[in-house]
Amino acid sequence: MSVQEQGRRAKAASAVLATATRAAKDAALRAMADALVRRTPEILAANEGDLAAGRDAGMSAALLDRLSLNEYRLEGMAGGLRKVADLPDPVGEVVRGSTLPNGLELRQVRVPLGVVGIVYEARPNVTADAAGLCLKAGNAVLLRGSSSAARSNAAIVAVLRDALDGAGLPADAVQLVDASSRDSVKELMRARGLVDVLIPRGGASLIRSVVEESTVPVIETGVGNCHVYVDADADLDMALEILLNAKTSRPSVCNATESLLVHRAVAEPFLARALPALRDAGVTVHGDADVVEVGDRRGVTVIPATDEDFDTEYLSLDLSAAIVSSLDAAVAHIARFGSGHTEAIVTHSLPAAREFTARVDAAAVMVNASTRFTDGEEFGFGAEIGISTQKLHARGPMGLPELTSTKYVVTGTGQVR
Amino acid sequence: MSVQEQGRRAKAASAVLATATRAAKDAALRAMADALVRRTPEILAANEGDLAAGRDAGMSAALLDRLSLNEYRLEGMAGGLRKVADLPDPVGEVVRGSTLPNGLELRQVRVPLGVVGIVYEARPNVTADAAGLCLKAGNAVLLRGSSSAARSNAAIVAVLRDALDGAGLPADAVQLVDASSRDSVKELMRARGLVDVLIPRGGASLIRSVVEESTVPVIETGVGNCHVYVDADADLDMALEILLNAKTSRPSVCNATESLLVHRAVAEPFLARALPALRDAGVTVHGDADVVEVGDRRGVTVIPATDEDFDTEYLSLDLSAAIVSSLDAAVAHIARFGSGHTEAIVTHSLPAAREFTARVDAAAVMVNASTRFTDGEEFGFGAEIGISTQKLHARGPMGLPELTSTKYVVTGTGQVR
Repeated sequence: MSVQEQGRRAKAASAVLATATRAAKDAALRAMADALVRRTPEILAANEGDLAAGRDAGMSAALLDRLSLNEYRLEGMAGGLRKVADLPDPVGEVVRGSTLPNGLELRQVRVPLGVVGIVYEARPNVTADAAGLCLKAGNAVLLRGSSSAARSNAAIVAVLRDALDGAGLPADAVQLVDASSRDSVKELMRARGLVDVLIPRGGASLIRSVVEESTVPVIETGVGNCHVYVDADADLDMALEILLNAKTSRPSVCNATESLLVHRAVAEPFLARALPALRDAGVTVHGDADVVEVGDRRGVTVIPATDEDFDTEYLSLDLSAAIVSSLDAAVAHIARFGSGHTEAIVTHSLPAAREFTARVDAAAVMVNASTRFTDGEEFGFGAEIGISTQKLHARGPMGLPELTSTKYVVTGTGQVR
Repeated sequence: MSVQEQGRRAKAASAVLATATRAAKDAALRAMADALVRRTPEILAANEGDLAAGRDAGMSAALLDRLSLNEYRLEGMAGGLRKVADLPDPVGEVVRGSTLPNGLELRQVRVPLGVVGIVYEARPNVTADAAGLCLKAGNAVLLRGSSSAARSNAAIVAVLRDALDGAGLPADAVQLVDASSRDSVKELMRARGLVDVLIPRGGASLIRSVVEESTVPVIETGVGNCHVYVDADADLDMALEILLNAKTSRPSVCNATESLLVHRAVAEPFLARALPALRDAGVTVHGDADVVEVGDRRGVTVIPATDEDFDTEYLSLDLSAAIVSSLDAAVAHIARFGSGHTEAIVTHSLPAAREFTARVDAAAVMVNASTRFTDGEEFGFGAEIGISTQKLHARGPMGLPELTSTKYVVTGTGQVR
C-alpha cells in the first residue's frame, strides 16, 4: 500500500479517535498490552528473523542487542502501554477560557493533532511506545522503523492492530510504513494534508535530512551536545559527582554531557581531581591548550581538542573540555557549540545561577544537577515521545500534551460583528 | 547587506532582548510610537513615492488605498504600539512547575522565540504592528514587506530603529529585508539557525510557497474558506443575521464566510429569505443543483457551483451554497473543503452543537455566532500577529504568548541519576 493511501486511512481513523472517550482509549491500550504478552512467541519468532539477518549482515553486538527482544522486554513494552493508560487524557482539557464583553463564551480546548508520523531507528520497543502515546492523545500514527527491525515491527504492529480492532477502535490508527526503501520516508515527508506532524527519532543525519526536505511540519528531536560548566563558586565535590554522572551513567543518550567548561579560578584544583577520575572511569578527554597543560602537569593524557571536538555529540566515553575566563565566556562557548538540548551550571552563587539560566538558550538549563535529568519520566510526565530541541510547539521532553493541538470553541446567542 | 548578515545581527540583538526588562521594552515601544507621530512628514513623503510608482504601474484603486498612509493612519500605528506596551509581558511567565521526588525544582518558563521573520504584502501598517509585537515578546524581527511599499517601509523602520537606539535597546532588533528581489524571501526561508520561525502573511500562493520551500519552521496563517452551517434546529432569523454579517461585513478578510450549508429540513424557508437578502446585499450565490432550483422557484439568480467554487476562498461578495441532508453531511463537506480556519453552526440543539464542535477540525468553531469573531482583538488578546491555520505551536489568533517558546529551568542541590 502506498504511503498516501496509508495516510488517507490514518486520517479517517484519526477522525474516529478524535471523539473516542478516555475509557475507550484506555481499554484499547490495556488490550494492546495484554496482546503483546499473550502473543510473545510469534513476536520473538519474527525478531529471531531480524537478528539472523543482522548477524548475516555483520551487525555489531551493540546494535544486535538493541534489536533483540525477549519475554522481559515485551513485558516492559506491555507495562509501558498500561502506564500510558493510567495517565490523564490530555484531550478535552480547557487550556483557557473567558466570557467576552459581548457575551460570547470562549474556550480553548486541547484536541488531537490528527496523524503523527514517526521515523525511528533500530529499537523495536519504540513501535509500541509511540503507538501507545499517540493513541492516548487521540492521534493515528504512521510508524516508519528501520529495515533491520522490519519483521519485529510488523509482528508488533499486527498484534496492536488486532487488539485495537477487538477493542472497537479502528486498526488503521496504528500502521507500519514500508521500511524497505528510502522512498517511504520521502513520501511521508511530502504527505502534507494527510500527516500533521513528523517526528524523527534517531541520529543527527536522519533528523537533518527530515528537517531539510519535509513539507510536513517537523518536530526536531534529540541531538544533545550538552555542557557542564563548573563556575568559580562551585562546590568542587558536587561538580565532580555531577560531571561523572552526566558523562558516564549512560554515554549513548542525548542528555549525556559531551563537554566540560571550567572557570579559570577553580580550573587547577578541579581538573587535578577530575582528570584522574575521568581517566579511571574510562573517559578520554579532548582538551583545549590549557586543559592539556594541566593534564601534562598531573600526568594524565589529554588529547588536544579542535573546534570539531567542541562541535561533536560523541555519544561515547569521550569528553571535550575547556577552561573559560568567566561565566560570560562559558555562555558564549555554549551559544557557539551547544545544540539547545541541556546545559548545566554548578555554582553556589545565586547571581551566577540566575545569569546562566537567563542567558543560555536551551530546552533545559540545570543548576547543580546532572544533565541526565532532561527526560519525560524524570520530569514527571509519565512517558515521553522524544525530546524536542526546537523552539516551536514543544521544547524539551514531550509528553502527552505535546502530542495535541488546541481548538477555540466559541458559543453565542446570535452575536454578529 | 545580505539576509545572512542581517540574520546574524538579529540573533545578536535577540540575545540582548531576551533579558531586557518589561520596563525597558515598554519604554522603547512608547518611544517608537512617539517617533512615528513626530516624524510623520518624512514617512508620508516616502509613502508618496510608493504611491506615485504604484499609480505609474497602474495599481488598482483598492491596492493604492491599502498602500496609502496619512496622519490618521500613522496615529493608528502609534496607538497600536502603545497598546502593545500596555499588554502583559509573556516572557518569564511560569507555565508549569513542581518539585520532583528527588528534590529538583522544575520550572517551565516562557522565553522569546529569538528571531522572527515576517513576509507580508502591501499594507505598511504591518511593519509597525509586527515590530511592536515581536519586540514585546523579546524577539528580534526581520521584516520582508512588498516591493510596492519599499519606500514607506524603509522610512518606518528607520524611525523605529532610531527610537530603539534612543531607548537603549539594539536597533538591529528591527530590520527591513531587501524587497527588490524574490531572492531575499528564499534566503530568509533558508536561514536555519539564524531565523527561528517564519510567518508568512498574505495570499494563499505566498503562504504555499513558503510552506513548501522553507527549512526554517513556518507558521501558516490566514487562508479562510469558512462555512456557516444552518442546522435543522436553527433559529432562522439568527441564521440569516449571522450569514449576512459573516459574508458581507468585510468580505476581503480571512474570517469572512465563503460558503453556506443548509440542512434540507429548513432549506426552503431559509433560502426563500436568504437568497433575496444576499442579492440585495450585493452577494452572488454559487449554489449546488438544489440551491439553484430554489433560486429558480423564488426568482433569484443562482450560478451553478462546481467543486472549485466550494474549494475557493473568494474574499469577495461571492458565496458558495449547498443543501445537506444531515449534520453528518455538513461535517463531511467541511472536512473536504474547509481550510481549518473558522466554521460556524447555527442551532438551538445542544446535541447538534456538541457534535459539530467536537467533529469539525478547525482553529475556531462558532456556535450561534459570526465567523468574523476569530480575531485576536475580539478574543481579548489585545493584538494579533496573524491567525494560524496549522496545528503545531499555535492555532487560531496568535497573540504575544504565541510569539514565545519555553525553557525548563531545573534547580538542585547536586542531584545525579
